[in-house]
Amino acid sequence: MSTNAIGELGDELMIIDKSLIASIRWNKELGRKLKILRGTESMQSLAKRAGCAYQLIQHLERGEYPESSPRNSAPTVSTEKLEGICQALSIKIEDFLGCPLVKLPQKIQNIA
Amino acid sequence: MSTNAIGELGDELMIIDKSLIASIRWNKELGRKLKILRGTESMQSLAKRAGCAYQLIQHLERGEYPESSPRNSAPTVSTEKLEGICQALSIKIEDFLGCPLVKLPQKIQNIA
Repeated sequence: MSTNAIGELGDELMIIDKSLIASIRWNKELGRKLKILRGTESMQSLAKRAGCAYQLIQHLERGEYPESSPRNSAPTVSTEKLEGICQALSIKIEDFLGCPLVKLPQKIQNIA
Repeated sequence: MSTNAIGELGDELMIIDKSLIASIRWNKELGRKLKILRGTESMQSLAKRAGCAYQLIQHLERGEYPESSPRNSAPTVSTEKLEGICQALSIKIEDFLGCPLVKLPQKIQNIA
């Protein structure tokens, strides 16, 4: 599966109201990015600041659930939790995902 | 919460790889749209064709979980299940959500 990271755009991009996205399908590349951004901070410390369980950070960095898990091997993460993690990492969720954000000027909103 | 239906664009639109969206945050307006598209077909019949439980159709058309549910009142639906429902209704998921889909030409994909 392709990601939206620069140079690896999928072939179908959707322009969607950010608030409509409830969860993101994770992949190993996003996991690697998360690990790099975490740097030397412990998973526990980041999880505490992000308001999630450190096991979530662990699963996400691995990019897959452990083989023992009954769940599908492709993890998903709620945008709410991902927003928390991104906030703790001082990065916007759209920048983390490599997804451009289009902000409509107020005037255009009013016309539309 | 705003939806992407024409004339009701949110103020933050994300351009995201369709395959990265795992689930959609539902709302009453989407529920009304689903009900209209279902028309006179029974929920059971649509659910069978869509490969989901008829209770899902029921919850989605209502736009919220019943008060007795322990879950949050804003339902979410996996894009996989929503794709099934949309397929059964002969509508593309992006058209149902009112989200424009950008398809990159193959050449540009290769350059990028």
